[in-house]
Amino acid sequence: MDTGTLSELLRILRERRPLVHHITNYVTVNDCANITLFIGAAPVMAEAKEEVADMVSLAGALVLNIGTLRKKQVESMFIAGHKANELGVPIILDPVGAGATRYRTEVASRMLQQLNINIIKGNAGEIGTLAGTGGVVRGVDSEGMTGDPVQVCRGLADVTGAVVVMSGAADIVTDGKRTVIVENGHAMMGRISGTGCMASSLAGAFAAASRDRVATSAAALAAFGIAGERAAGKAYGPYSFRSMLMDEVAALVPEDLRRSARVRTL
Amino acid sequence: MDTGTLSELLRILRERRPLVHHITNYVTVNDCANITLFIGAAPVMAEAKEEVADMVSLAGALVLNIGTLRKKQVESMFIAGHKANELGVPIILDPVGAGATRYRTEVASRMLQQLNINIIKGNAGEIGTLAGTGGVVRGVDSEGMTGDPVQVCRGLADVTGAVVVMSGAADIVTDGKRTVIVENGHAMMGRISGTGCMASSLAGAFAAASRDRVATSAAALAAFGIAGERAAGKAYGPYSFRSMLMDEVAALVPEDLRRSARVRTL
Amino acid sequence: MDTGTLSELLRILRERRPLVHHITNYVTVNDCANITLFIGAAPVMAEAKEEVADMVSLAGALVLNIGTLRKKQVESMFIAGHKANELGVPIILDPVGAGATRYRTEVASRMLQQLNINIIKGNAGEIGTLAGTGGVVRGVDSEGMTGDPVQVCRGLADVTGAVVVMSGAADIVTDGKRTVIVENGHAMMGRISGTGCMASSLAGAFAAASRDRVATSAAALAAFGIAGERAAGKAYGPYSFRSMLMDEVAALVPEDLRRSARVRTL
Repeated sequence: MDTGTLSELLRILRERRPLVHHITNYVTVNDCANITLFIGAAPVMAEAKEEVADMVSLAGALVLNIGTLRKKQVESMFIAGHKANELGVPIILDPVGAGATRYRTEVASRMLQQLNINIIKGNAGEIGTLAGTGGVVRGVDSEGMTGDPVQVCRGLADVTGAVVVMSGAADIVTDGKRTVIVENGHAMMGRISGTGCMASSLAGAFAAASRDRVATSAAALAAFGIAGERAAGKAYGPYSFRSMLMDEVAALVPEDLRRSARVRTL
Repeated sequence: MDTGTLSELLRILRERRPLVHHITNYVTVNDCANITLFIGAAPVMAEAKEEVADMVSLAGALVLNIGTLRKKQVESMFIAGHKANELGVPIILDPVGAGATRYRTEVASRMLQQLNINIIKGNAGEIGTLAGTGGVVRGVDSEGMTGDPVQVCRGLADVTGAVVVMSGAADIVTDGKRTVIVENGHAMMGRISGTGCMASSLAGAFAAASRDRVATSAAALAAFGIAGERAAGKAYGPYSFRSMLMDEVAALVPEDLRRSARVRTL
Repeated sequence: MDTGTLSELLRILRERRPLVHHITNYVTVNDCANITLFIGAAPVMAEAKEEVADMVSLAGALVLNIGTLRKKQVESMFIAGHKANELGVPIILDPVGAGATRYRTEVASRMLQQLNINIIKGNAGEIGTLAGTGGVVRGVDSEGMTGDPVQVCRGLADVTGAVVVMSGAADIVTDGKRTVIVENGHAMMGRISGTGCMASSLAGAFAAASRDRVATSAAALAAFGIAGERAAGKAYGPYSFRSMLMDEVAALVPEDLRRSARVRTL
C-alpha cells in the first residue's frame, strides 16, 4: 500500500471534519472525544434512544463500542446502526471484551448478524471469539487466539463483509481479499487504558474520508502508531506518555503518514 | 463592570467553598469535577432520582448539562431542579447540543418552561435554537446563529428571566438589561473537549458567591479565560494545554481577576 | 508491621496481574482504570446485570464504588457481590457519599448486611455514618466524625467482619484486633478528584495478592502515599500533580515499599 494514499486520507479527513457519532463506554469516552478532535474530526456522544437516529443522520461515521454495554445502550446501538445502514454511514464496531462474558459475545454477534458493520476492530481474543475459531479474553485483555491470525481475520471478513482490523504488535487490516500489515506503534501504547478505544475512534474518523475501508483503517492505525512512536521518547511514565500521545496525534500532518507509515500488503 | 467586583467574587467563592451539584454528561464529567475543585468549590455528581433532592439541598448551585442526556437522567434533572427552585439554589443550564437533535431541543425547552433557570450557558447555535430565532448545531458544535448575537441573547433573557451566557471569541453575558462582554480566553480552548462544560461548572461555582448572576457569570468566564491565556504559552499541544489550563485555574488568585479581566459593559 | 511484607505483596500482585472488576462511578472511572494498570493489575468495568456474574468469576477482586449510584447499578452490585461471595472473590466497598444522602447511606448499609464485604474504605464522615456513631458528609467530602477514629473503625470492623480502612492525614487500617497506621501521603492528594476512588482500586488490586487484608490494605495505601510524596515535588499545580502521581505509581518497585513505607502497628 502506497503511503501517499494514507497521507491523502488525512488531508481529506481534516478538510471534511466529519462528525463521528460514538455510542461508547464511560471509561475511555473522554480520551475518544479528545483524540477524535485532535485528528481533525468532530466527536459527539449520544445514546438516548429518543435521539440516536437524529444524531447519526448528521454523522460521517458511527462508532459502536461495547466496553461498558448496558441493555438500554445496546438497544440504542441497534437503532443508530439501522439508521446508519439506511443512510450509508459507515459503522465501526469495537467488540470490547467479547469472549470474556457470554453477554458481550452475544451482543457483538447479534450486531454482526443484524447490522451491516463496515469495520470490526478488536484484539486477537475478541476477533478469534467472533470468528468462532477460538479466542481467549480476560476482562478486556486478549489472551490469544487459535489459528493463524491473518487467516482468522480473512475468514471473519469473508463471513461478515466487514473490514477486519486486529490490533497487536503488528496490526492486521483485511477485507478478506486485500490484507495490509501496519507496523507502526510502541509497546507503551499497551500500558495505558483506552488505546484500543482510541484506535476505533480514529478508524471512525478516517472512515468518513473514503469508501476504501482497508486504506482508511490502515491510515488510522499508522497515524496512531506514528504518534505513539514519537511520544514514547518524551515520556517519564505511562500517564505522561498518554498526554504526549494525544499531543502527537494533534501534531500530525499528512506528510508524516507519507514518510513514516510502515505498511505492507501481504 | 469593575474588575474589583469580579476579584471579590473569587475571594467569596473560596471562602464559602460551595457544593456544586452536577447532573451532567459522562464525557467531560471528570474535567468538571477537577475544575470545580481547582476554582475553590466542592463538586458532587449525583443523578439517582432517589437522592437528587437530598443532594441539591446541600448545594450552593445546581449544574444541569444535557451532553449525554438519557430519559431517566432528565427525570432526575427535573426533580433536582424543582427542589433547587424551592430552596433558592441557583440553576445553571448547559443545553449541550440543543438544535442538533429534536430530543435535546425539546428537553432544554421544557426545562426553561417548567423550571426557574437562573443561568443559561451555551454556544451561538444552542442559544439561537432556544431563542427560537435560528441556530445551527452539528453534534455539540455551533455552526452559527441567525441575527445579532447580543439582541438574541437579550431576547432569550427577557423571555426566560435567566442570565444568558453565550461563549464565543468574545463571550456575552446578559440579563436583558445589563450586558457584559468578556474578552479573555484563547483559541486553544476551542481545540479540546470539555471547555464548554467546564465553563458551566465555573459559572455554577461562582453563582454560589452572589445573587448578581451577571457579575458571577462574567467572573467565571474571565477567570477561565485568564487561565487559558496563561496556559497557552506553556503547552506543546492541545492535551498538555488542557493540563496547564487546569493548573492555571488552580493558581488563580483574586488579584488576577482585578488585574487581568477584560470585561466591558455594553 | 514489617515493610518487607508490604514489599512482597507488591511483588506477588505484579506476578499474578489479577483482574479487578469494578462497578464504579463515571466521574473517576478512567483514573481507576489507569491506576489499576499502573500498579500491575488488569482493570475491567462491567455493570450490566446480564454479565456481572460472569465477569466477577474471572476476577481476583471486586470493587464496589457508589460514587454515582443508580438503581440498576445497585442491583448489579448485589448480583456481582453475591457471586463474589460464593466464589471467595474479595469485595472492596467504597461507600462514597454515605451520610450525604439517605439513599447512599441506605444502599451502603444494605450491602454490609446482605453481602460479605471484605474491605470497607471510606473517609471519616462515611465511616462514622456506617458505624452509626455519627459522621458528617457534604457531597463526597468528610466533615468529620464523632468519637475516637480508631475506636470507631474497630467497632465497624467488629460488627461487619470487614477490614476497615479510613483515609485521612494518617490512614487507619483495622480488622478490629490488629490496627495499622499508614503515614505516607501528601496534602496535594486531597486537592484533586479521584484519589479516594483510586485508593480503593489499589486496595482491590492488592487484595488479590493475599488473604491478609490488613496487610494488603496497608500496602495499597503505603504504595499510593509514597507515589504521592514523590509526585508532589515535581508538579506545577494539582492537575500536573495528578499526572505525576499516576507515573509514580507505575514507577514503584517492591523495594520502594520496603524502604519508604511508614506503617506502625497500634
